Amino acid sequence: MKVLRITRPGGPEVLEFDERPAPTPGPWDLLVRVHATAINRADLLQIHGAYAAPPGVPADVPGLEYAGEVLATGPLVRRFKVGDRVMGLVGGGAFSEQLITHEREALPVPENLDTSQAAALPEAYLTAFDALVLQGGLRMGESVLIHAVASGVGSAAVQLCRAVGAQTIGTGRNAEKLSRASAWGVGRTVLCDTSPPRFADAVREATGGRGADLALDLVGGNYLPETLRAMALQGRVLLVGLVAGREASAELDVILVRRLHLTGTVLRSRPPEEKMALTLAAERSLLPLFRSGALTPVVDAVYPMREAREALTRMARNETVGKLVLRWE
Amino acid sequence: MKVLRITRPGGPEVLEFDERPAPTPGPWDLLVRVHATAINRADLLQIHGAYAAPPGVPADVPGLEYAGEVLATGPLVRRFKVGDRVMGLVGGGAFSEQLITHEREALPVPENLDTSQAAALPEAYLTAFDALVLQGGLRMGESVLIHAVASGVGSAAVQLCRAVGAQTIGTGRNAEKLSRASAWGVGRTVLCDTSPPRFADAVREATGGRGADLALDLVGGNYLPETLRAMALQGRVLLVGLVAGREASAELDVILVRRLHLTGTVLRSRPPEEKMALTLAAERSLLPLFRSGALTPVVDAVYPMREAREALTRMARNETVGKLVLRWE
Repeated sequence: MKVLRITRPGGPEVLEFDERPAPTPGPWDLLVRVHATAINRADLLQIHGAYAAPPGVPADVPGLEYAGEVLATGPLVRRFKVGDRVMGLVGGGAFSEQLITHEREALPVPENLDTSQAAALPEAYLTAFDALVLQGGLRMGESVLIHAVASGVGSAAVQLCRAVGAQTIGTGRNAEKLSRASAWGVGRTVLCDTSPPRFADAVREATGGRGADLALDLVGGNYLPETLRAMALQGRVLLVGLVAGREASAELDVILVRRLHLTGTVLRSRPPEEKMALTLAAERSLLPLFRSGALTPVVDAVYPMREAREALTRMARNETVGKLVLRWE
Repeated sequence: MKVLRITRPGGPEVLEFDERPAPTPGPWDLLVRVHATAINRADLLQIHGAYAAPPGVPADVPGLEYAGEVLATGPLVRRFKVGDRVMGLVGGGAFSEQLITHEREALPVPENLDTSQAAALPEAYLTAFDALVLQGGLRMGESVLIHAVASGVGSAAVQLCRAVGAQTIGTGRNAEKLSRASAWGVGRTVLCDTSPPRFADAVREATGGRGADLALDLVGGNYLPETLRAMALQGRVLLVGLVAGREASAELDVILVRRLHLTGTVLRSRPPEEKMALTLAAERSLLPLFRSGALTPVVDAVYPMREAREALTRMARNETVGKLVLRWE
């Protein structure tokens, strides 16, 4: 089978195709033929040598999500059979024609999605669902601040909020991308073209002075102090990315007096029991909303796998709205 | 009735006795004769003019907790009768011979405590109980990092942890106070006599490399980055005080990769429904442990009310271990 592998640390140009033996499924595993995968910032970090793969996945093949069909199953598999369309998260190695996954970490592809759409789903929607719903306790009527709203996770978060009756306020650094994001129903967008960014006043204005109940922070860095100032009493901040930097100053009196909750979260390094629990919660609560049409993966473009380098370069230039999908031909 | 009131912003010397009309209980209120109160850092801040009282309590009379007996009840009161011994938190005004409180914000004094011990209980134990148990989800077998372990809240937190089968690691800036704190069962103490403080290595060593599951942070400031580094995966940090300062730097990658939870909390400004809920939860879960002797308020000294200024001065000098109680004669 073909894989796209990292030949040395660097930019997208260091990726090259290679041949590998197909993996062998364990007793509870599926062997999946990958139709499509989608790219993430973590892939860029891994290609640069700045984000090592966890144990148990190929160290030199990026790719965190896939959609495809079941080619073979281990003897104890009960959830899927050969030929079923599946999608899911993996710890790495999705830039590959075949991969193995535990059956409890795989999701059925909703009938109304093709595998390009399905490949754009897992990372964005499971991240947003886990952060906003499972950890953040998102409820109807709440106001949710979403940074990097034009990103894959941002678009998923906006749709999820709309689907549960919550209001959204989205930030971004690019006016054109923000206006495209408005098309999928962001209640209000705030252009952040200064450093440090200023959005707390706009959030207060949009929430009748109250502030945001929940924030999905994909950027960290110097966004954090302003995010804290934008929150309502007992607001919950979910920190899921650090695009703007690892260091932040924090006004602890704001955290204390407003009784804020700040939670850091990451999916990739979680132990298998947590990945399984998230997968099954998503199957129960998230997939019905794709079947009903309330949620739709936002796909910026679909590239053939041989153009993966170009796609990664576009992501690195922050030009995309939603997800970039890579498809084996 | 007598009150001890703030005549102007300043140190403890600005407090003077005054006469006030006794307050009138509303339908659900108790009129309480205060036998004793205890002092808190918030009283010092309020006397300095840096911590305004919330609406509905005397603005110029400090005091956040009391123990005494019921003098009169409003017509709808059901939980207590005249002569019952009660204790509790108030938003202010406890440096007074009488006060009123909603019956659902008052607790019965356990039979085995005198009212000086009872006056030392509410702020320390309700803060620790609310932060560690109700918000922090403290469980048996966990390791808990407690800053300012010799303080009133610190001593309550240690006892609470012991009572539920959790291990404790306590920090403090004074070796003699730390050794007195060891007497009530702190598993390990760490002297923090440098700035910034260093304790994360000691916490890792005491927890077999794992880090603390829970931290009760009464100090904030430059303790916070080191606290984050001392935490286990998915550790919970409860920020309840800012003695070391309001500004902190934070390594967001530590929060994200370790999936930490940071929660700010304060009792005084909470709305009545939350104060009632906390009171009733404490009556159900916390008071039985005082009756059994598993918990005992740590009283540093009991002063007559006319020596309140001296007691406050001692607290300002950080000389105390546990609580300072003030008693009407």
